[in-house]
Amino acid sequence: MTDFKQLYQKNLELTKQNIKESVSKDIFIVQAINSIDELNRLINTLSKRIREWYSYCLPELDKSIEDNQRLAKLILTKTRKEQLKEIGLKEEGSMGKEFSKTELSLLTELAKELTNLYELKNKGEAYLEILVKELCPNMHTLTGALIGARLVELAGSLKKLATMSASQVQLLGAEKALFRHLVKGSRCPKYGILHEHPLIQKAKKSDHGKVARRLADKISIAVRVDFFKGKFIGDKLKKELEEKLNKN
Amino acid sequence: MTDFKQLYQKNLELTKQNIKESVSKDIFIVQAINSIDELNRLINTLSKRIREWYSYCLPELDKSIEDNQRLAKLILTKTRKEQLKEIGLKEEGSMGKEFSKTELSLLTELAKELTNLYELKNKGEAYLEILVKELCPNMHTLTGALIGARLVELAGSLKKLATMSASQVQLLGAEKALFRHLVKGSRCPKYGILHEHPLIQKAKKSDHGKVARRLADKISIAVRVDFFKGKFIGDKLKKELEEKLNKN
Repeated sequence: MTDFKQLYQKNLELTKQNIKESVSKDIFIVQAINSIDELNRLINTLSKRIREWYSYCLPELDKSIEDNQRLAKLILTKTRKEQLKEIGLKEEGSMGKEFSKTELSLLTELAKELTNLYELKNKGEAYLEILVKELCPNMHTLTGALIGARLVELAGSLKKLATMSASQVQLLGAEKALFRHLVKGSRCPKYGILHEHPLIQKAKKSDHGKVARRLADKISIAVRVDFFKGKFIGDKLKKELEEKLNKN
Repeated sequence: MTDFKQLYQKNLELTKQNIKESVSKDIFIVQAINSIDELNRLINTLSKRIREWYSYCLPELDKSIEDNQRLAKLILTKTRKEQLKEIGLKEEGSMGKEFSKTELSLLTELAKELTNLYELKNKGEAYLEILVKELCPNMHTLTGALIGARLVELAGSLKKLATMSASQVQLLGAEKALFRHLVKGSRCPKYGILHEHPLIQKAKKSDHGKVARRLADKISIAVRVDFFKGKFIGDKLKKELEEKLNKN
């Protein structure tokens, strides 16, 4: 009986050890990109609230200033008169009502929080940049930090991404369209998340599919080299890709 | 022609003036309660992300500590060893992996942001308390700040709430159930948002409907007095209500 207990204990320890070792650094990429997505959502919610609220005070500001960060800064740093000047209006021109500072105290706190969140998002992107560059230097040269991280996130882990075929990589993020194609026979998607890549963005519409395929080819090679800790060949891959695209 | 132009100008000015004057202070109540709701949502999103992420480092912490604020504080102020001690575990007992500070930098920033959001939420509630107490002193005595603000928000404005019958007030927030009752003949709801009120919470289940009706009666009176800037009769109303409830 004690033998069995010992065996159980030993087994438990080994399992814990295995779990511990299964945590690899690419989970940080997944968590970071998800955090950035969530921060974006938080920023949008808060911006909408601030815009709606401040519209009672100065409705004209909402329309004339589209950048949320700038709006928050204006609310925080300038008086209502200066804000009116900023958008070229006089006091009589506004339909809003002036409120006292105490009345607007919560609103300014919200605006402060919004600028904090923007800062945090920037920090997150810088963090992701370093992380992707360190873990997947080859992929980073081809895709940049954001698209690279999103590929890892969609695949689930770096290992899974490395074992995917190039055509799978090409369609990551287009799962819905792919299944619609397979089940209902609609048109096959040509790219998923890669659509955001500058090379595809700047290509002609009719070339998008072709560029996506070639890009996915190279990314697939790069990820494998990254996963098996190979040499840095990112610049070579990028050059090859650009040459191929320029040829036709 | 110039006459018409002048008339148009004058009209525009008057309209703007009217819009300006239509902004009353109860919009602050609506905006504040909405802000608090949104802050709650932001807090939940961020907490979930932090829990998921930190689980790779110390999965046992997620299970043992349910309070998000405390979790964030632990991550921020204590080392991993101290955290292990806090939940009564030894280093070997954990299935997580230790990561360096730079690796966790974004995570700690998120935890900081979470504590900020909690503070902001507290500030928002304090702000709301003052606001409701100032604008609707009578209702405030009966309902407290949060329920009172939610009633105003659901009605649309203080004016609309004041012109509602007591039975409408009783069912504010139960619109879905009410229409289900009217259309499909399911059971009629007995209360909406008032369900959260301590008087209803502490009553017997079978008395909930009765308490809600009496509470709504008194709230309806209080709101009208508040809206027409009458005297403070909140304590009288509250006493009457409590006496009535104690009688049967």
